[in-house]
Amino acid sequence: MAARCLHLAALLSFFSGAVPFPLGPETGKSPTCGYESCHATQPDMLNVHLVPHTHDDVGWLKTVDQYFYGDRNDIQHAGVQYILDSVVDQLLKNPDRRFIYVETAFFYRWWRQQSSSMKQTVKQLVEEGRLEFVNGGWCMSDEATTHYSSVIDQMTLGLRFLNETFGLCGRPRVAWHIDPFGHAREHASMFAQMGYDGFFFGRLDYQDRSERMATKDQELLWRASESLTPPMADLFTGILPNGYNPPDGFCWDQSCDDPPIRDDPELEDYNVDDVVNRFVAIAKSQSMVYKTNHIIMTMGSDFQYENANLWYKNLDKLIRYVNAEQAGGGKVNVLYSTPSCYLQELHRANSTWALKTDDFFPYADAAHDFWTGYFTSRPALKRYERISNSNLQTCNQLEVLGGPDSRKGPFGEGDSQTLKEAMAVAQHHDAVSGTEKQHVANDYARRLANGWQRCQVLVSNSLAALSGSTAERIYCDNLNISVCPLTEASKKFSVNVYNPLARPVSHPVRLPVNGSSYEVTDANGKPVDCRVLPVSSSTKETDLHPPPPPPGPPTSIQNKFLRVTFDPDTGLLSGLSNLETKQSVKLTQNFYWYNASDGNDALSIQPSGAYIFRPNSSTPFTISRSAKTESIQGVVVQEVRQVFSPWASQVVRLYAGRRELELEWTVGPVPIGDALGKEVITRFDTDIRTSEYFYTDSNGREMLRRRKDFRPSWTLWQSEPIAGNYYPINSRAFIKDEEDQLTVVTDRSQGGGSIHNGSLEIMLHRRLLYDDVRGVVEPLNETSDIFPEGLVVRGGVLLSLQPPPRAADAHRPLAQQVVLQPLLSFTEGELHPDTRLEFSGLQAALPPAVHLLTLTQWDEDSLLLRLEHQFQKGESKVNSEPVTVNLQKMFSTLKLLGVSEMNLSANQWKDKMKRFDWTPQTGEKPLLKEFPQRSVWEVTLRPMEIRTFLLRVR
Amino acid sequence: MAARCLHLAALLSFFSGAVPFPLGPETGKSPTCGYESCHATQPDMLNVHLVPHTHDDVGWLKTVDQYFYGDRNDIQHAGVQYILDSVVDQLLKNPDRRFIYVETAFFYRWWRQQSSSMKQTVKQLVEEGRLEFVNGGWCMSDEATTHYSSVIDQMTLGLRFLNETFGLCGRPRVAWHIDPFGHAREHASMFAQMGYDGFFFGRLDYQDRSERMATKDQELLWRASESLTPPMADLFTGILPNGYNPPDGFCWDQSCDDPPIRDDPELEDYNVDDVVNRFVAIAKSQSMVYKTNHIIMTMGSDFQYENANLWYKNLDKLIRYVNAEQAGGGKVNVLYSTPSCYLQELHRANSTWALKTDDFFPYADAAHDFWTGYFTSRPALKRYERISNSNLQTCNQLEVLGGPDSRKGPFGEGDSQTLKEAMAVAQHHDAVSGTEKQHVANDYARRLANGWQRCQVLVSNSLAALSGSTAERIYCDNLNISVCPLTEASKKFSVNVYNPLARPVSHPVRLPVNGSSYEVTDANGKPVDCRVLPVSSSTKETDLHPPPPPPGPPTSIQNKFLRVTFDPDTGLLSGLSNLETKQSVKLTQNFYWYNASDGNDALSIQPSGAYIFRPNSSTPFTISRSAKTESIQGVVVQEVRQVFSPWASQVVRLYAGRRELELEWTVGPVPIGDALGKEVITRFDTDIRTSEYFYTDSNGREMLRRRKDFRPSWTLWQSEPIAGNYYPINSRAFIKDEEDQLTVVTDRSQGGGSIHNGSLEIMLHRRLLYDDVRGVVEPLNETSDIFPEGLVVRGGVLLSLQPPPRAADAHRPLAQQVVLQPLLSFTEGELHPDTRLEFSGLQAALPPAVHLLTLTQWDEDSLLLRLEHQFQKGESKVNSEPVTVNLQKMFSTLKLLGVSEMNLSANQWKDKMKRFDWTPQTGEKPLLKEFPQRSVWEVTLRPMEIRTFLLRVR
Repeated sequence: MAARCLHLAALLSFFSGAVPFPLGPETGKSPTCGYESCHATQPDMLNVHLVPHTHDDVGWLKTVDQYFYGDRNDIQHAGVQYILDSVVDQLLKNPDRRFIYVETAFFYRWWRQQSSSMKQTVKQLVEEGRLEFVNGGWCMSDEATTHYSSVIDQMTLGLRFLNETFGLCGRPRVAWHIDPFGHAREHASMFAQMGYDGFFFGRLDYQDRSERMATKDQELLWRASESLTPPMADLFTGILPNGYNPPDGFCWDQSCDDPPIRDDPELEDYNVDDVVNRFVAIAKSQSMVYKTNHIIMTMGSDFQYENANLWYKNLDKLIRYVNAEQAGGGKVNVLYSTPSCYLQELHRANSTWALKTDDFFPYADAAHDFWTGYFTSRPALKRYERISNSNLQTCNQLEVLGGPDSRKGPFGEGDSQTLKEAMAVAQHHDAVSGTEKQHVANDYARRLANGWQRCQVLVSNSLAALSGSTAERIYCDNLNISVCPLTEASKKFSVNVYNPLARPVSHPVRLPVNGSSYEVTDANGKPVDCRVLPVSSSTKETDLHPPPPPPGPPTSIQNKFLRVTFDPDTGLLSGLSNLETKQSVKLTQNFYWYNASDGNDALSIQPSGAYIFRPNSSTPFTISRSAKTESIQGVVVQEVRQVFSPWASQVVRLYAGRRELELEWTVGPVPIGDALGKEVITRFDTDIRTSEYFYTDSNGREMLRRRKDFRPSWTLWQSEPIAGNYYPINSRAFIKDEEDQLTVVTDRSQGGGSIHNGSLEIMLHRRLLYDDVRGVVEPLNETSDIFPEGLVVRGGVLLSLQPPPRAADAHRPLAQQVVLQPLLSFTEGELHPDTRLEFSGLQAALPPAVHLLTLTQWDEDSLLLRLEHQFQKGESKVNSEPVTVNLQKMFSTLKLLGVSEMNLSANQWKDKMKRFDWTPQTGEKPLLKEFPQRSVWEVTLRPMEIRTFLLRVR
Repeated sequence: MAARCLHLAALLSFFSGAVPFPLGPETGKSPTCGYESCHATQPDMLNVHLVPHTHDDVGWLKTVDQYFYGDRNDIQHAGVQYILDSVVDQLLKNPDRRFIYVETAFFYRWWRQQSSSMKQTVKQLVEEGRLEFVNGGWCMSDEATTHYSSVIDQMTLGLRFLNETFGLCGRPRVAWHIDPFGHAREHASMFAQMGYDGFFFGRLDYQDRSERMATKDQELLWRASESLTPPMADLFTGILPNGYNPPDGFCWDQSCDDPPIRDDPELEDYNVDDVVNRFVAIAKSQSMVYKTNHIIMTMGSDFQYENANLWYKNLDKLIRYVNAEQAGGGKVNVLYSTPSCYLQELHRANSTWALKTDDFFPYADAAHDFWTGYFTSRPALKRYERISNSNLQTCNQLEVLGGPDSRKGPFGEGDSQTLKEAMAVAQHHDAVSGTEKQHVANDYARRLANGWQRCQVLVSNSLAALSGSTAERIYCDNLNISVCPLTEASKKFSVNVYNPLARPVSHPVRLPVNGSSYEVTDANGKPVDCRVLPVSSSTKETDLHPPPPPPGPPTSIQNKFLRVTFDPDTGLLSGLSNLETKQSVKLTQNFYWYNASDGNDALSIQPSGAYIFRPNSSTPFTISRSAKTESIQGVVVQEVRQVFSPWASQVVRLYAGRRELELEWTVGPVPIGDALGKEVITRFDTDIRTSEYFYTDSNGREMLRRRKDFRPSWTLWQSEPIAGNYYPINSRAFIKDEEDQLTVVTDRSQGGGSIHNGSLEIMLHRRLLYDDVRGVVEPLNETSDIFPEGLVVRGGVLLSLQPPPRAADAHRPLAQQVVLQPLLSFTEGELHPDTRLEFSGLQAALPPAVHLLTLTQWDEDSLLLRLEHQFQKGESKVNSEPVTVNLQKMFSTLKLLGVSEMNLSANQWKDKMKRFDWTPQTGEKPLLKEFPQRSVWEVTLRPMEIRTFLLRVR
């Protein structure tokens, strides 16, 4: 066999000065949208802002398209096409009425089916502020299980559509995450950088809410980054009064049963007085737990307003009859409003607000109801979403590098848009979160697969353009279970390796083959180290390979950086040493399962489910106290293969020349013959003195310190000793003491905790027998025709042992390598001799602190580029400093004609971004700091900063 | 005590010639409503008429106002205000769309809340035929349990509103009874006389339907009277294909789960081809069981179109995509249509149609599911509805006779409109039918009571004007249980008796008193026969009266017309003789109960319920084989009081000078301690040789012959020997042979049958423990706070024994006396000496064949008058002849300025009434016969004819 590598390290560079691009369409008349379109309020009264809204899940019990069309109403009555039809009709009936719309994935579907006159009508409504977009991303993303890269992408996709369709009036002023189950600090930071003036949400810990109600701190200032200079990541945050529902007795949707306002005195049951009295009482009561003489009421809920007339007809009456009381001295003023109009009044109040610097995880809505299960739910989908992001970034980059031929070339028509939309949909808070029904999870996966199919054509076209070869390229998506028909059958083939990172990486390539001896050469024809290994027993079971030779048990493996020891009696890991730094820690690792509560106990009827994690005992069961082990030693790689049970195994893998240890785990099908739901964890027990602290990342970026049985914001009463100590891990977690930091880099989002001193556990897989009564009405069992026995999941964690001051220098690039993996493509037989075997899009590797976050075609002659400083302030001695990049010197093949900086979501010029300023209770109003820039091409990045550019290219 | 009688026998008479009154408002532009507004069809294709419609029950699970407002959606999701809002909106979006509306009780409520611009919009839609009224009565009346008088009134009320609001375009062309549970011939006759071109319904016996499908006779010509000359009572009748629902898979209401048309090829689940194929298959299959190349599909159902967009958006697409197939040779043409447009195409087909002369009772939708229980369900409500009609007719007459002072006079403001509307609502097929929930039944009764309160003021004002006395008048509505506080306490009072019939009647007045000796005088001061009787034991239990003296058992009672014998051993009736005609029959009467099926048997799971009658055995249980009896003999009245059990008793009562025997039964609370539902009957067993025949009236008018286990229209397979032989009795039933006819006149609608030779049974009361699964979701248990033990019901049947040729001469006037009873009002103490004590509205009694059906104020200077020939053709030797009345000689106090004849429902001039002509399969097309008339004032009535006049008066 002869494998050749085509190295594409990264990307390009340009010429002249900044060029203004128009953002969105020009509109004929001067619009009065935004804050100017708000209704007047009464300074000496209690103003009640009624916000008509619908919450439209981009998939949950039904698929996104089923929701759009109103198909499968037997599962759930919901049809977004009708919601938008109806709301537009009703807005036209009364200019006072307002509506907000949130999910662009749905709005986009609807818009493209409208006539031009309807489009004109809707534009008019938007320009008059009667229809207002809030949030405006493609979906309302999950906050616990999403990676910042994909969140930024999905927000950009949605906001771009709004911008291009509606211009300035289409830009949302407010972020609106009314449903996600806990709130990530990194999300708040991103929203601030996207130019939002404020943020509203509905769910927070019930204890946190109680305390905030008592202190009137349900509206606060969230300082969402320890690295970015305030107010860059400051975000005004409001907690809504009833989740996102209307107050009791005032739901007038077709899905509700509350009494309508019956104001015809000639009919039975006239109830205007009763309605007014109940409403005024509720309004006054609500005003007691908020700070100003303005309160907000969310008049809507899931998929409401399909028949908006019901809502508006009654709201019109409510406003009329309550305000009529003012003539007799009533002090309540009700108005149609929007979150931004409400926010404007809070801003005008010129008050000071509690400052918050931690996050809102975990979320519990009752003492035994911790929403920490979904951090891990559907681990296979979570991994597929993550690898799809890697593929999408590669696709985006190659679309830029390959030029127009990428989209239409020798392999047909390809695009990145399909995968962009599929990835955007997958960020929804019932998508990658794992809290959807099984058939919907299948739909998300199918969309990603379809998107990747379209990208494969684009990638093939692009690589053909860059290499000069139109030989067919094969993609092997199942290499994780050692399946690749081409490599298994071929005598001679070439491998193309595309690296989407902005610096060279060393990447071990593992391919399934059927021969016993292969010759591998690089692009220059030089031999490459390789080794033929037997597949592991867990892979065999998956894929019916022949049995491997049985090697003897090891006591240790090591390379020049790491030494790993095993307990000879149990076969378990026993220690890890960094040979460079001369650190050593005791390290025992094993697999356990918590017995999921079935809801049948005295404390609470809450079972574990897709959302909720609730073990019925704090002590997990050990799957096996010892492992059957085999070891394979070699120059390229050393493996110790551990079998714990027929459904739990692991390969401990150490590559030559690598500073991290890989643990590849395989779990499943989780047995349920004993009628017990199981939540499987891997646990690392060390002698690191953690003092109840451990650390987790937020959406793959900044780290947050966690402490056992503790919340920074309030005095916690801990009622779930395990579930209440779980936090989302998106890319990494670590434990440390003064000497040692053990960082675990994960390949997907997972939940984890540090329950014992020196211990870190990560939940890998869950199989549950009961629904957890949060609406999904399915146990998280994950059986299907393909997996009748239950799902087998495989994944990897990387362990890095470093002294704390040097740990980030290792885990930051390591985590990015896991997020953006090289893409392999294969060509059968001999390559044409004219084939170009190496290409780099970049003139040179970017500095170690700089991550190429986004490179994607924006339109015909412009690109979107995001550069990111990937280190936190103070995290690294060498890398936590500002770093400057010259854009013109970046790319090897692209001619840059102009550059303009934008906000993070690319829907506003950076220099036009003016946000509301807010004063924290604890200090001065922070003012935005302007940094001088030498030239438009010289881009300085400070720790954790992301800068977004629109580049005009030729 | 001195009681004085104010006799008002009947009503007035007039002057000059006919005067045309405008009907409805003049409209600005020439309307294109009606048949001209129908869409074009394709002669060489199968035309599918899609009829968007909603079926809005005027009360059922919720009250009429709850339905209107959409209140109590927890019981049933339904809000008519929103339906009309939404339909109008959607009609405006596409001029091709059509909608029909049916129930004016709802439309009227909605209309009065609309702005003038909305009213103008709706008028435009009506004038363009886009919104079309069908049926158009206040409600869609029940056909089994309604009296023709109230049906005509409720139709008049609804149609008048449409006429006055929309003019010619508001006149429905089609009668539309899609939901009533069986169809009465008299209803068809009335519809014909109201000018309808055709009639559509949804429910008929499943065996009947099968046969008609096979013979393509689901569309037919119904000859609905044996007396009226064809085509006067000929009505084209169509049976709808799916009840009134859309075909399977094509329900796009918000209440349905069928897949919407997903026609965006870029989204998942594109299904246009599938939808088109399914629809074409259904259309072709449906066309196989109908006669022409036109078929109708009812696209709607109960309370649908609350969000009409869902329906219309998908129907638009359906029409577009199915008709698009025509370009490729498709032969199906789909169009928006209405029942009248469909009817027009059937008429154009110029075919001949099966002739039907019987009716559609009883209705069974499966072998053990006979809808014959509701004939009796809620007997107390059924009686209250009937007496309310009597009160309303009195109120109407006195409004005319008393003049404007009636509505505003010494007792305040009164009106007849409230009771008119309450009575109209009560005709609904889930109102007087007894098939509503308990709280809704209570609401109907409350409305009738409210209406009667308003009428009492009017009646008091009118009587004050006519008598010259403003002394307070008291009304005793509980005389049936011997409650009247005034007469029970007063030493001296006067009684005013108003007789709403057009001829003098003798009417025994029974009043509760506490003294033992009273003097009664008439208007002239002459003594009136009277007798103080103890109240019966059943009345005592109801009202806590002291016990009566116990008289001994009788063996017979008699007056100069009748002799009634009793079995001395059992106390039961044993014989009845007409002493005038020297007829004698054996006559045993007793009370029995059928054990209601609980649905727990091998044949069927159908239980008895509000709709369904299903005894679990054909043999009823005898309540008691013997009765404890008491008798009271006197000059005025003789009574034998029979006690069968603590919950069943009877008074056999014979008044001096009366030719009928009264049986006053008291049944209840029906015991259910044995957990058995009970359906209580009274049964008359005679030696009349009935040969399996018996006779029942249709809506209180023409008689129909019934035969055991037989249907005139098809070969019956009888699967329920009792329930399948039950028929509705509205006012009377009889059995006869050559010599003897025993007629039973009832005081309310009831079910009954003749199961054995010589036997006639009538169901009196039902108490059931299970719901019968037709939607009401309540057992017919009739308990409430007032009647925690269950309902006690009292009623009366009158027996008349005559030779058959003379029977009608007795039962026709007798039944009218039961329907229109004298109204008693009371004045405490001495009357002012100037009080006028007698008044008659009529110059003289009308001829015996003529019934004054309607006399009511129409507007300020006009009245509505209906005169009726109350005998069938050939029924009576003396009375079944044409009879002429001179209107100018009728009334005593009214000056008639003009007269114009109208159709039966008073929404069209009689001479403008041109209906579609239809040819029966069995003969020539009948042509309407014109009878010459001597003058406009000379009105000739032929058997069973009702003539309707608008009179201009001064």
